[in-house]
Amino acid sequence: MIIWLVGLSGAGKTTVGREVVRQWKRSAPNTVLVDGDEIRALYKHDQRPGSHTVEGRRDNAERITALCHWLDGQGINAVVCILSIFPEMRAENRMRFSQYFEVYLKVPLPALQARDEKGLYGKAARGEMTHVVGIDIPFPEPETADLVVDNTPGAAAPENLARRILEGAGVLK
Amino acid sequence: MIIWLVGLSGAGKTTVGREVVRQWKRSAPNTVLVDGDEIRALYKHDQRPGSHTVEGRRDNAERITALCHWLDGQGINAVVCILSIFPEMRAENRMRFSQYFEVYLKVPLPALQARDEKGLYGKAARGEMTHVVGIDIPFPEPETADLVVDNTPGAAAPENLARRILEGAGVLK
Repeated sequence: MIIWLVGLSGAGKTTVGREVVRQWKRSAPNTVLVDGDEIRALYKHDQRPGSHTVEGRRDNAERITALCHWLDGQGINAVVCILSIFPEMRAENRMRFSQYFEVYLKVPLPALQARDEKGLYGKAARGEMTHVVGIDIPFPEPETADLVVDNTPGAAAPENLARRILEGAGVLK
Repeated sequence: MIIWLVGLSGAGKTTVGREVVRQWKRSAPNTVLVDGDEIRALYKHDQRPGSHTVEGRRDNAERITALCHWLDGQGINAVVCILSIFPEMRAENRMRFSQYFEVYLKVPLPALQARDEKGLYGKAARGEMTHVVGIDIPFPEPETADLVVDNTPGAAAPENLARRILEGAGVLK
């Protein structure tokens, strides 16, 4: 099964994703975390200028899908943390993977801009950075998510969110 | 643990590797097959002319190592089928992976040329193909293997070889 965790930068995908894997691994050691940023590093031979443009992001998304398809075919579960801006690719996921559960980790953009952990929203606002999703690259809010989770700062502890996700996916009861 | 299965094209790496995974998965579902050819397809954005030259092979070998390192760090076992021509990379494996077991699947070159399943030894002999390991790209025989297995046609059944490999690696008793 593939759990696809979508959200903007700073929405907490990696934190929640790690916790989902930690809890899932208790019953299924054949589970991995597929973190978008880690996969960029893994495919290091392709790190070129333009890797964060829309086309660069499409390449990365296609690689992540191919990796998950390969893992899924070998009976490995994956929790994918991804800033997924291509609705058509998410629609394909549902057909490609043996089981697919899509989660939208929702945080209002103003809250992300206020916190701005990586400093990229500030840089984008000051015109020092381009190709920032939510600012100059549109983020179409996922309309096909199986579960929408509010992760506004202070809303819930990651371990509780992870449990809700695994319950939603039918992994935990 | 990473089991690294080295051998020339046609030596039976994929057949034996699949069988090793099948037997290993009985006790460890967190096990995958990392087949060199499949990984080329997985990283499809890099399939360019030159992908089978020595440099192209080095890129592929580095990607496979990075993938295994990523899997290993998440507690996933891998059985790697690879035409590994870089002794220095195999030496690094021993330091990078939590546990590493290297197997040389040995078949004499004349036997491979006689069988020539993919037709590449014939093409190389007729000058129709270049970058063939064992012919115009040297194959330094692995000197650091933990186990050398003779897979000359008719020598042994894949399931028996797989069992010997898993026993050698300490996975089966």
